[in-house]
Amino acid sequence: MNVATHNLRCTECAAVITKDDVSSNFRCPQCNGLYEVVYAWSDAKPAATPGAPEHPHSLLPNASALRWLWQERRSSSMSVDQSGVWRFRDLLPIVDDFEKVVTLREGNTPLYDLPRCGKGAGINWLLAKHQGMNPTGSFKDTGMTAALSVAAQRGFEWVACASTGNTSAAMAAYAARAGLRSIVFIPEGKIAWGKLSQAMDYGALTIQLKTDFDGCVKILGDLVKQFPIYLLNSVNPYRLEGQKTPAFEMVEQMDWQVPEHIVVPGGNLANSAALGKGFTEMHQLGLIPRLPKISVIQAEGANPLYRWFIDSNRVMKPVTADTRATAIRIGNPASWRKAAAVIDELGGWCEQVSEQEIALAKAEIGAEGVGCEPASAVTLAGLKKLVALGKITSEERVVLILTGHTLKDSQYTIDYHRNELFTDAEKAQLTTADQARHAALRKPPIVLDADSTLVLRALESHMNQPQPA
Amino acid sequence: MNVATHNLRCTECAAVITKDDVSSNFRCPQCNGLYEVVYAWSDAKPAATPGAPEHPHSLLPNASALRWLWQERRSSSMSVDQSGVWRFRDLLPIVDDFEKVVTLREGNTPLYDLPRCGKGAGINWLLAKHQGMNPTGSFKDTGMTAALSVAAQRGFEWVACASTGNTSAAMAAYAARAGLRSIVFIPEGKIAWGKLSQAMDYGALTIQLKTDFDGCVKILGDLVKQFPIYLLNSVNPYRLEGQKTPAFEMVEQMDWQVPEHIVVPGGNLANSAALGKGFTEMHQLGLIPRLPKISVIQAEGANPLYRWFIDSNRVMKPVTADTRATAIRIGNPASWRKAAAVIDELGGWCEQVSEQEIALAKAEIGAEGVGCEPASAVTLAGLKKLVALGKITSEERVVLILTGHTLKDSQYTIDYHRNELFTDAEKAQLTTADQARHAALRKPPIVLDADSTLVLRALESHMNQPQPA
Repeated sequence: MNVATHNLRCTECAAVITKDDVSSNFRCPQCNGLYEVVYAWSDAKPAATPGAPEHPHSLLPNASALRWLWQERRSSSMSVDQSGVWRFRDLLPIVDDFEKVVTLREGNTPLYDLPRCGKGAGINWLLAKHQGMNPTGSFKDTGMTAALSVAAQRGFEWVACASTGNTSAAMAAYAARAGLRSIVFIPEGKIAWGKLSQAMDYGALTIQLKTDFDGCVKILGDLVKQFPIYLLNSVNPYRLEGQKTPAFEMVEQMDWQVPEHIVVPGGNLANSAALGKGFTEMHQLGLIPRLPKISVIQAEGANPLYRWFIDSNRVMKPVTADTRATAIRIGNPASWRKAAAVIDELGGWCEQVSEQEIALAKAEIGAEGVGCEPASAVTLAGLKKLVALGKITSEERVVLILTGHTLKDSQYTIDYHRNELFTDAEKAQLTTADQARHAALRKPPIVLDADSTLVLRALESHMNQPQPA
Repeated sequence: MNVATHNLRCTECAAVITKDDVSSNFRCPQCNGLYEVVYAWSDAKPAATPGAPEHPHSLLPNASALRWLWQERRSSSMSVDQSGVWRFRDLLPIVDDFEKVVTLREGNTPLYDLPRCGKGAGINWLLAKHQGMNPTGSFKDTGMTAALSVAAQRGFEWVACASTGNTSAAMAAYAARAGLRSIVFIPEGKIAWGKLSQAMDYGALTIQLKTDFDGCVKILGDLVKQFPIYLLNSVNPYRLEGQKTPAFEMVEQMDWQVPEHIVVPGGNLANSAALGKGFTEMHQLGLIPRLPKISVIQAEGANPLYRWFIDSNRVMKPVTADTRATAIRIGNPASWRKAAAVIDELGGWCEQVSEQEIALAKAEIGAEGVGCEPASAVTLAGLKKLVALGKITSEERVVLILTGHTLKDSQYTIDYHRNELFTDAEKAQLTTADQARHAALRKPPIVLDADSTLVLRALESHMNQPQPA
């Protein structure tokens, strides 16, 4: 296999096929498994000595040269270099012409320190990689630039996915950028208009089918066999190639230090799988001397991976998902095997967190000036639990993956601060200490007469209240 | 004056004061005028020969050295270098310690080409500088990183503004980042919760006063005289220092080519003033050989600058503002004199556009995969008018300034695509051609039975419809 090319390998039966042999539904015809993209270096063993500068693939620049090249590209004004995904193109040779990739200048997302959240969780060194700062407001953009570039270079004119949320927004934006037509399939019935607003803005066609979500996926699977529509659901392995690049970006931002622990929200589970692939490839190529642990956090109401993790028989059973963190409201995650392998191979954990824990964590992250959607906040909530369980120690450097922007779900924020997010029964479950924590973070507007003396008095009383730690 | 320091100069009576002498309401005690920040080079005449590499300020690196320095910093992992504002800190020496600036990694916003929008408007070369890709989703972040850094380094613990929109979101985020407390003043009555969601998320205290917006500004002016609250309304001249940096970034992204024309939405008018200042300073320092024109576009229902522009007596009369483009719904713009000077000195125009023209332009920008809030879309709508009037020719390179992200106003997008944005009376005003343009862009969801044959038939019929040009 040439270094600048790739194959596809079934993650279940390990059958390897060329990129031109893949079926339109991206499922292995033998075992129905998902594919992953493999390269010349995919099965390389990492150099035995940590920090060894050379890797065994002489056609690829060595580790130092790659680091230098990636840094140099940050100063370039070419759009392929300005993309935080394609800047690392040496490790995702999935298209024929890099100068024609479909990009919105995704990636390049900030790595924020969260000193107060870290202190609250009991660790000294907490960072957040904010993937919600991507062009459409979620981490899905890094995957869509990859998969849409493949679609465009293979001559497709239509792309489609079944999704109402961040995936449809990202797909629609990149399809529009490429001049392709995009179709979003959703179950008929309760449309969440807010979640569709971006797909409509970017010109996607939305089709509501008289069936449920699984029915939509099935129809879409039928359609791509009959009509040249490129499938962009999470089974598409090229999306993960884009989604692995935040791992590269993160260690580059840390001057090639490797954090001890990455904490990722768990919904469809493709994100944890992709980040694990990114770190593993860097390790194989000698770019980093060791691997971080990757832990996955799920909401209690959408916790199939957590159940698998604590099940001594390791059986995956889909659940009926229910959580206000809509981006991870997934009961039957397509990529669970890939994520499970990452947890096992890199040595992380899986935890679940309650609705109230998510809301508190989101407000704590917000109070550091960093806004995220509820699903992102499971990471901080889960971190607290992992520290309490002794799985993460105070000296470890931890990076939380924030997956979406706070503007993705304004209503959640509004309901929280108006104290209308939870039912009375839920509120009754909180301890007095937790009630106080929520009260210190909640900021409902106050009403005053237009009199500066009255306002001053209110401020002085407010000033004496403790700030959230 | 030392090159690394600055003074403040009244934009009306030209009185110059030191930074320590400024009143807490940032108004000139003589004439109530607004201040601008001035530096050693502020009154320099540009070198007579275009492209002359040297400027007269020997303490500042020369133009080539500045360009090189700014490019080098893009490869740095220091947070002050990763900021798209502070990377240009040589031209905004407004704080004592650059290593302690309050930053969320603002700036570094993409410059997108909009080929289909350009073709539709009749020009060959159209770009959009998307300031909505800033951390809180609007251009206000570039100003807030500057003004909050000043506030923090001067030891303030409280900051405040009167705003319900993008300004309050940006202030709250940067205040939280700095560990300061922030207060948002708004008139009591109809709260737009969606617009407040970010300020609450970032932990701001919101106070509703029983008065109108002007009353809020007055109370805030009183308060800052009695209590150490740092005023962050647009009268704060340091905000403009941050907001001038997209001008630097834009020409750097164009490899130091200067576009012929910049088109800016006009609300409070501080943005056009700031961009004008940025270009003028680059010209004075020999960084660019000539100035672009800057044109300002207002909504018909909030058009005080347009009225001033077409008035032969050049009188500014406040209006009662009414437009769905809420970010520019301002009838009495604080910074109008600064913006008017920019239009006059750089030679741009002012135009007004209708509600329907704004909606069409927003959908056209969206169909290129670039989402923006309604106020940003006035730029494309205005460009079409300026081309039709012969003010911009097809060969000129034009940059639209997009000020906010599409997620800032999802409801507008939803209403548009459901055809519920306009009243029947407004719809009746559209020509048949305009109705067809809107119909081609509107994407209301369609409902189908879960049958792949039916779906295929629907797609084939959709495929035969023309795409928006």
